[in-house]
Amino acid sequence: MTGKKAGPAYQKIECYLRELIQTGAGRSEPLPAEPDVAARFGVSRMTARHAYQRLVNAGVIVRKRGVGSFVSGHYLERLPISGTPDFSGWTEGGAVHFVVESYGIVKAPANIVRLMKLKTGEKVTRLQRTRSVNGVMSLDTRYMPASVHGLIPPADIEHKSLLVLLKNAGFDIASGEVELDAHSATPQDARKLGVLPGHPILQRRLVYRDAQGREVLVGTSRYPGGQAYTFGFQFDARTIT
Amino acid sequence: MTGKKAGPAYQKIECYLRELIQTGAGRSEPLPAEPDVAARFGVSRMTARHAYQRLVNAGVIVRKRGVGSFVSGHYLERLPISGTPDFSGWTEGGAVHFVVESYGIVKAPANIVRLMKLKTGEKVTRLQRTRSVNGVMSLDTRYMPASVHGLIPPADIEHKSLLVLLKNAGFDIASGEVELDAHSATPQDARKLGVLPGHPILQRRLVYRDAQGREVLVGTSRYPGGQAYTFGFQFDARTIT
Repeated sequence: MTGKKAGPAYQKIECYLRELIQTGAGRSEPLPAEPDVAARFGVSRMTARHAYQRLVNAGVIVRKRGVGSFVSGHYLERLPISGTPDFSGWTEGGAVHFVVESYGIVKAPANIVRLMKLKTGEKVTRLQRTRSVNGVMSLDTRYMPASVHGLIPPADIEHKSLLVLLKNAGFDIASGEVELDAHSATPQDARKLGVLPGHPILQRRLVYRDAQGREVLVGTSRYPGGQAYTFGFQFDARTIT
Repeated sequence: MTGKKAGPAYQKIECYLRELIQTGAGRSEPLPAEPDVAARFGVSRMTARHAYQRLVNAGVIVRKRGVGSFVSGHYLERLPISGTPDFSGWTEGGAVHFVVESYGIVKAPANIVRLMKLKTGEKVTRLQRTRSVNGVMSLDTRYMPASVHGLIPPADIEHKSLLVLLKNAGFDIASGEVELDAHSATPQDARKLGVLPGHPILQRRLVYRDAQGREVLVGTSRYPGGQAYTFGFQFDARTIT
């Protein structure tokens, strides 16, 4: 879209930044830095700065000295934990049913290019499925390296945990980030999760990396809120006795 | 309330269990076991079983062999992490404003008696406050041991992180559980958080324990959903190099 628009360069940059923000950028990580954006659009740093300043003046972004630009009116509360998650048996409690809606290789969308540090146009493995545990549905979208598609056959996806399959395929998860926020059900959520539009939805985003720091599993799960679904984690700094 | 009701014993037990469920019991942990409830009401185990079976038949609870009875149609997805959370600087990013609404010693409500493993009628320190970070509000309710009230003066509560104050008072957090779910704003949420009733709300519950396993900080935070607030955690099993 950006390339099609006429008008001053700062407007193109402003539009580009607004598009990035709409895909979720500028919350966990800063928006792209001014010099990078100036280089991308082939303009002076002054022109790029003008675009950022217009978004600051409009109350869309805030600039944090030494860190970068973020969406305003958003608060990310992030708790760092040094430790090992125990994925064994995770999501295995109760009767789990997977329905795979699609599993294939696609061109990575812009937000995945950013999260997985890919080049524009690079391919990834995408999985879309519904999951039902104890009668509670979730909508899962997962992105993995393109090579995963050849290593994990579609039949396995329906019956086994993705974390177990990835581990067996040589992708062991060593670090990661999980983010959670609350939203209202879109018409699509409502249809697929069996709730009314506007019903509260818990959205979980994950970025899991292997020991080399490569993103091997990135995605989103949407769950019905209210009394249906709770996400929890336990931590323990004590030596188990 | 339970004591006032006439009718067969199984009805009193059924009513008692429904009341427990309404306060959030039966999700993370099982409902009280049949023999305990039979003893509490001074009835036979058969009578207690009848009450549980009626709730199973009504689709309110499910019984998990060897684990206990849980609310049905609810899914708790819990990720265990062996490690140390780094609370230093947590919730300190951005401009934090606390407004203390109440801070005092109260009789522990039923769900806190359960979570903090107290005796009925035992006293606890309760804090109710609003917190604002980067323009995003939260409603916090916190329960701590009664002795905390004498150790942490009210003036400090307005200006410092509760985790830092507890640590300085000798309550070092060693393990804990965090649970998150999505709800709709009640009229009270709406008024205090500045959103419309029905707006999505992220609720976070926490149970933090010291090295001896005593619950030292238990409570709930409610945040506006949508684009306003994200809760995240990062884990890292690798040795930092």
